[in-house]
Amino acid sequence: MTTMTNAPFGRVHIIGAGLLGASIGLALRDQDVVVTLADASPSAVALASDYGAGVALPPGAPAPDLVVVAVPPDVAMEVTRSALEQFPAATVIDVTSVKAGIYEGLTQTGADIARFVGTHPMAGRERGGAVSARSDLFTARPWVICEAEEDRRQRVDSFVRSLGATPIMMSANEHDRAVALMSHTPQLLSSVMAARLSDASPVALSLAGGGIRDVTRIAASDPALWIQIVQANAEAIGEYLQGVKTDVDRLLEALGDLGATGSRSAIADLLHAGNAGVSQLPGKHGVSTTFASLIVVIDDTPGQLAKLLTQLGDWGVNLEDLRLEHSPGANVGFADLTVKKDVVAEVESKLIESGWRIAGEAK
Amino acid sequence: MTTMTNAPFGRVHIIGAGLLGASIGLALRDQDVVVTLADASPSAVALASDYGAGVALPPGAPAPDLVVVAVPPDVAMEVTRSALEQFPAATVIDVTSVKAGIYEGLTQTGADIARFVGTHPMAGRERGGAVSARSDLFTARPWVICEAEEDRRQRVDSFVRSLGATPIMMSANEHDRAVALMSHTPQLLSSVMAARLSDASPVALSLAGGGIRDVTRIAASDPALWIQIVQANAEAIGEYLQGVKTDVDRLLEALGDLGATGSRSAIADLLHAGNAGVSQLPGKHGVSTTFASLIVVIDDTPGQLAKLLTQLGDWGVNLEDLRLEHSPGANVGFADLTVKKDVVAEVESKLIESGWRIAGEAK
Repeated sequence: MTTMTNAPFGRVHIIGAGLLGASIGLALRDQDVVVTLADASPSAVALASDYGAGVALPPGAPAPDLVVVAVPPDVAMEVTRSALEQFPAATVIDVTSVKAGIYEGLTQTGADIARFVGTHPMAGRERGGAVSARSDLFTARPWVICEAEEDRRQRVDSFVRSLGATPIMMSANEHDRAVALMSHTPQLLSSVMAARLSDASPVALSLAGGGIRDVTRIAASDPALWIQIVQANAEAIGEYLQGVKTDVDRLLEALGDLGATGSRSAIADLLHAGNAGVSQLPGKHGVSTTFASLIVVIDDTPGQLAKLLTQLGDWGVNLEDLRLEHSPGANVGFADLTVKKDVVAEVESKLIESGWRIAGEAK
Repeated sequence: MTTMTNAPFGRVHIIGAGLLGASIGLALRDQDVVVTLADASPSAVALASDYGAGVALPPGAPAPDLVVVAVPPDVAMEVTRSALEQFPAATVIDVTSVKAGIYEGLTQTGADIARFVGTHPMAGRERGGAVSARSDLFTARPWVICEAEEDRRQRVDSFVRSLGATPIMMSANEHDRAVALMSHTPQLLSSVMAARLSDASPVALSLAGGGIRDVTRIAASDPALWIQIVQANAEAIGEYLQGVKTDVDRLLEALGDLGATGSRSAIADLLHAGNAGVSQLPGKHGVSTTFASLIVVIDDTPGQLAKLLTQLGDWGVNLEDLRLEHSPGANVGFADLTVKKDVVAEVESKLIESGWRIAGEAK
């Protein structure tokens, strides 16, 4: 069987047929790459194969050019080591959320690390195995590529781009510290906050607004996956969590004795540091000098939002972000539209002329 | 001047012409209620008056039926006390975020507390003074009403409904504990998390996904307002923050010695407690048994989203929630649609038939 393809790797073997592995398989099959699959669970391979993500590795199959290890963090190093052994000519990558431990483990076990490239796709919604797999899971998402032999790194870079992702170069240590800050510590703090809700009264819960919902949203993540991630990156997470502890201790001291010198300024300093920190986030979700938002009141009936967006489309307005919110039982909802700051005033007056009610303006 | 109105109070005097005061004024003027305004800053009154929120209290004006105190938390008790004195026949309400201190202060200073009703509208986006005021700021928002003489409480209940809000009865102490949990502690934890971002590298920041953005969004809130709120509710916040400290300490201990007995289960317990807590939140934003979400890939051009929503409207599909997200620089975005669980499969196949790409399915 000959395959004509411009893909950077013509034959790819994927170990681990969960969401990530199966999604990579689907995306590669779209490019006519030959994809073979393996998994500790034969039924996982069968399922992913049914979905069109590749076929079970047949005995005597030609050796793959690339092996993708997409298994849980707990076993990723061992499976990668064994893949480097089993496929002595292939480039081997993994897609695990924590990287330094794998590089260390491979070095310690004398694996042929020259053929290894550690990677991490920042693809959200990591739930549900092959059944949730999508060929465009990686579209427009960052995909970290760590240290490697330059030639292989370049090919993995092309590979990642061919899946629609944006490659980002970082060392394994740099990556692990970055995700400890940007993903793992927020996960734990979200869980810590959500844990407080367990014994809340129904009437207290009825006051839930956007703030608590946003802070605790990721607390709904899968504990089985996260326990592995947190363990694998314990040191870096511990450093950031130590900073959290210092701030919480200082707050508790200040709250316990508001009259003491420095108590009020300690609270104010923390709130200002929060302002400064969130403004560091790129894009349109933090405090932005480029974008502004308008909150439009809409009736809670089908078609209303479509009408609003049709008008915006007719006016040539490009939405940067859109969020719909309404309280249970309310007859109206709010569409929170984010547009470029230089058009917000014009959009607002056009909306008002067209009979829409504007409930507010943010930032 | 005679005013014909069914409003529960015919003459309302508002002290404090900021966002809340001016918004109440605008909403009341829509009902032809006579609204007078006062503020420590004469220019604030002039501005709110220009917006149509009422007029400056003229000398010799007939006494108001209701006085609304809408001043910053720091001065709310004193202004309320003085309003009870200045208007000896009026019902007086406040709209401050923390309630017990005001009841205590009024009792201690011998104010005529029988005419006082403490209230708190849970209206978000509390930014920007009268210039951001909207007559529908309170539409479909909870508005807490605390202990009061039954007759006055009933009228305030009607008043709150007339502004479009949903009244919720709670004692002042119950309210303060509830907002400490549902609003104040999340605010501080969001600030604590965001504070960690101050010295993050640009490459680390480029990994920012939905998780960190959600957890830190409210860290952009106004420190000047929040320092007052936190001080006024220090005790209740302190209790919840003590629970946070206990969890953080336990995590740090576990992360510092993963091999020790109980370390792994401590991390797992916290993640499970987070799952349980977030599932307590009412409505559609937590883990839901009623709603499901579909992620649809859309081109980042005007009109695409309108087309999607027009189709959904044509099919009679009511969106419970909608969120648009796209990475800066990407050619496609994702519309995260929340619909009733019993229609999600049908909606998904209709969308696919109509040529839409589904990028994923959540919960």
